[in-house]
Amino acid sequence: MEQSNIAFGLAANDAIGVLSPFSFSLRPKGDNDIVLKILYCGICHTDLSVIKNEWRNAKYPVVPGHEIVGVVTEVGSNVQKFKVGDNVGVGYYIGSCLSCDDCRQDSEHYCPNLVGTFNSSYPDGTKTYGGFSDKFVVNEHFALRIPHKLPLEKVGPLMCAGITVYTPLKEHGLDQPGKHLGVAGLGGLGHLAVKFGKAFGLKVTVISTSPSKEKEATERLGADSFIVSQDPEQMKAATGTMDGILDTVSANHSLMALIPLLKTRGKIITLGGMAKPAEIFLYSLMQRGKTVAGSIVGGVKGTQEMLYFAEEHNITPDVEIVGMNEANIAMERLQKSDVRYRFVIDVANTIRSG
Amino acid sequence: MEQSNIAFGLAANDAIGVLSPFSFSLRPKGDNDIVLKILYCGICHTDLSVIKNEWRNAKYPVVPGHEIVGVVTEVGSNVQKFKVGDNVGVGYYIGSCLSCDDCRQDSEHYCPNLVGTFNSSYPDGTKTYGGFSDKFVVNEHFALRIPHKLPLEKVGPLMCAGITVYTPLKEHGLDQPGKHLGVAGLGGLGHLAVKFGKAFGLKVTVISTSPSKEKEATERLGADSFIVSQDPEQMKAATGTMDGILDTVSANHSLMALIPLLKTRGKIITLGGMAKPAEIFLYSLMQRGKTVAGSIVGGVKGTQEMLYFAEEHNITPDVEIVGMNEANIAMERLQKSDVRYRFVIDVANTIRSG
Repeated sequence: MEQSNIAFGLAANDAIGVLSPFSFSLRPKGDNDIVLKILYCGICHTDLSVIKNEWRNAKYPVVPGHEIVGVVTEVGSNVQKFKVGDNVGVGYYIGSCLSCDDCRQDSEHYCPNLVGTFNSSYPDGTKTYGGFSDKFVVNEHFALRIPHKLPLEKVGPLMCAGITVYTPLKEHGLDQPGKHLGVAGLGGLGHLAVKFGKAFGLKVTVISTSPSKEKEATERLGADSFIVSQDPEQMKAATGTMDGILDTVSANHSLMALIPLLKTRGKIITLGGMAKPAEIFLYSLMQRGKTVAGSIVGGVKGTQEMLYFAEEHNITPDVEIVGMNEANIAMERLQKSDVRYRFVIDVANTIRSG
Repeated sequence: MEQSNIAFGLAANDAIGVLSPFSFSLRPKGDNDIVLKILYCGICHTDLSVIKNEWRNAKYPVVPGHEIVGVVTEVGSNVQKFKVGDNVGVGYYIGSCLSCDDCRQDSEHYCPNLVGTFNSSYPDGTKTYGGFSDKFVVNEHFALRIPHKLPLEKVGPLMCAGITVYTPLKEHGLDQPGKHLGVAGLGGLGHLAVKFGKAFGLKVTVISTSPSKEKEATERLGADSFIVSQDPEQMKAATGTMDGILDTVSANHSLMALIPLLKTRGKIITLGGMAKPAEIFLYSLMQRGKTVAGSIVGGVKGTQEMLYFAEEHNITPDVEIVGMNEANIAMERLQKSDVRYRFVIDVANTIRSG
């Protein structure tokens, strides 16, 4: 039986960013599409930045949410990967050209024609609305199988924050046991970077501005050591010791403070971005053949691999579950970094249509 | 027969940087050392920067020169690699600890205890004087065999400019036929980058501020194409086409103009450095997984390999031969980039002691 194609969710209508009830038509189901009932949706800082139009790209109304876990309610006639009743995940994007070099090399996330899960549009102009809603339509290629042992309420953030830290560890050779990884910033990305780093057998050092996070980092999350970035003695003692640093900090900060921590040919991979341009004396890279690279989420194949790796190594994000009615409060707290470490909305149990 | 241990050369005595006659004691020959009669010495921009104390590290008197070609006149009792009469080369450094991770991985150039060929000192405090002089003592480990087919007067610049462009092509996977290499700046480094790039089978595009260099780049040096960096149309047309860019420009310039030229996972390798910090919006690296890396010369093993590669592919720098008496004029012209592309001093035939 075909179900209603009217979806219901929460949308921001302007840069104030307050979320309020919003109804919209679901994209018609195509032959390669699956329709989901949304169960959970994580809240990423990107959602907050977009609804407040910090990046000047908001197309209101915006229904945020791109860390989606749902259950399949309908399948198109060509669907191969899924059947009704399967649990599936959807991350940061739901479309790409599938024919460019990037797509053919399992890097859909770098496709120039990427269709974002929310605040984006398909080539035909159809807008995309995210996971702060009850239903979702997606081409099966971009949907992920959820490994059985992963708790459904914790999977959402893996498909954005998780893959964002997993991809550079794999692509930059930082997945080899014994290597020393620095993790700058201990938030949504950082706490997962520690967990994936330890699962790869790395020595992990958290670098943070907050001395208060030391116990959390080493005792609960399992980091091997902790450095307060404002402490010159601690920073000096760590000079030349790290094979790589995942820089998860999005606030303006100095890369020149991190570069000396790297060994010869060490790499900083920047994941947080920051509003101001980074100022880098190039000689600091030349002296020891060092690298600053960028990375962002990952391809579909890599994301699926990451989910199975997370299942095998029992990696889940630390989450705080909230109801749809608490979405605005959660956004306010996220703005103040008042969350350890990721909010997830229990959509199915708390949504009220109309 | 032991020869005189008094060497004669040209030294700068202050930041004005004028070179004048200078005599000094040669370091006593050790068991692993060879003594050279210097035949030729290239002039690198680093020599100019140091004698004018631009980097605030000059230890006057400074005898510059680190692109040395000589003939062995004496060998220490343990010397294995060379015999009297052999032609040998010496590049940017003549000492390292030989026991650290970098040294053990054939990356002596990144050793924290590197001893530079000039304006440096050995662990015992002995100063090093460079190749603008008649004799030289060097531990055989740091001396290079000169392949027979390479003309002696052109080898010097290979051991500094040559290895500086060769190393990153090898280390960053830019040695695979068919890849597209950008070369920013067409000077001492840049013209050799074109030659090595073509020898590796790459498509090579020169990126330059000077439209007048197009013919030179494409017709004489063999580049496949040429882009004027100030021409927005040409830069736009090249968007997303390059696997890597060797950035040889040392004048202050914008990396943000080069980053869009890269394909997904493309790399800019900065070789020229620049006085001001580079300003980089990190999101421009994140969007397509791009990299900015630094590199500087290369290890002994890699440099030897590069020399044989140059012989096999008939790669030599374009040089202008000058006499010792023309060293000051050459430095003045180098300051104005008035050289295509490297000065080499014909030391043996033009030196006059005292």
